[in-house]
Amino acid sequence: MGNLYVALVHYPVVDKNGAVISSAVTNLDLHDIARAAKTFGVYRFFVVTPLSDQFLLVDRIVSHWVTGYGARYNPKRRQALELIRTAASIDEAGQRIAEKEGCPPQRIATSAHHHDRCISYGRCRKIIDGKNPCLLLFGTAWGLDRAVMANSDHILQPVTGCGDWNHLSVRSAVSIILDRLISKRG
Amino acid sequence: MGNLYVALVHYPVVDKNGAVISSAVTNLDLHDIARAAKTFGVYRFFVVTPLSDQFLLVDRIVSHWVTGYGARYNPKRRQALELIRTAASIDEAGQRIAEKEGCPPQRIATSAHHHDRCISYGRCRKIIDGKNPCLLLFGTAWGLDRAVMANSDHILQPVTGCGDWNHLSVRSAVSIILDRLISKRG
Repeated sequence: MGNLYVALVHYPVVDKNGAVISSAVTNLDLHDIARAAKTFGVYRFFVVTPLSDQFLLVDRIVSHWVTGYGARYNPKRRQALELIRTAASIDEAGQRIAEKEGCPPQRIATSAHHHDRCISYGRCRKIIDGKNPCLLLFGTAWGLDRAVMANSDHILQPVTGCGDWNHLSVRSAVSIILDRLISKRG
Repeated sequence: MGNLYVALVHYPVVDKNGAVISSAVTNLDLHDIARAAKTFGVYRFFVVTPLSDQFLLVDRIVSHWVTGYGARYNPKRRQALELIRTAASIDEAGQRIAEKEGCPPQRIATSAHHHDRCISYGRCRKIIDGKNPCLLLFGTAWGLDRAVMANSDHILQPVTGCGDWNHLSVRSAVSIILDRLISKRG
């Protein structure tokens, strides 16, 4: 099985009106997604933003927990947040994965909406269990821009509950999707 | 099937040293858990705290999204946050459920640790699919106090990933557990 990577994308994503924006980094996204990533054996968690001030914010938060006071206060949190890397674009994250792994990752986009070429969780598990590294892409704000979907190798079926209300936080969506893809059920 | 309820407990919970404390309400807990609750058909989401200032904080946040500007800005968020109720104790939540349902709920505690009387997700699904209402209890901080575990009808098996690192946020844990208990997999 190749290494699994997660990217939380702040650009290009869409706002509630469908316009392409760069969203702001949210502190709890870093914590919750790093903790889920650590739980489910994700190799690295990329925070994707082209904005230099947001880069600095991520570095400051991560440093506090990985090398600063937070690392002593809560060593378990350190083990999660040290999975975080920043990247200026999805392509940059892909290139860095390719340098590490020797081949580019399969890009798997996620969405709250159904797309014609959506793949099931079972199919996605098989792709992840294959030899190649995989990069799961999650959008902040109102989701990934359509160009990201078009450039992805696969689009994963949305998480649905017991009705058509489908507005989970990205923190919840990452957690559920990693659990569905990775956990071996007892 | 009886109605399913979720309680996010701020007292009695334990801190990192095992002392019983009352934790502070976190804004994103309300949003993320309400959104997960709405997705998975939970009937009500109780925020349990005995502290009157924390009660007021919850009411202020919920009012903004249910009747204030937030309700117009994001009607989907309103539909989630209107599931929230405050209760001064787990017992009070249980009493209010009993008044609505005609019988007290089965209390199902959750924990990041294994307990001798843990039940599986399959067993828990059967309990939830039964006639009686159920109340899923989630602890903030370092988890529910042992007295809560002792007074619960059942304790659910912890969420584990692919190793022994087991430190999800409560937001992630609620999301994964509701998905495991409610979703019908395709």
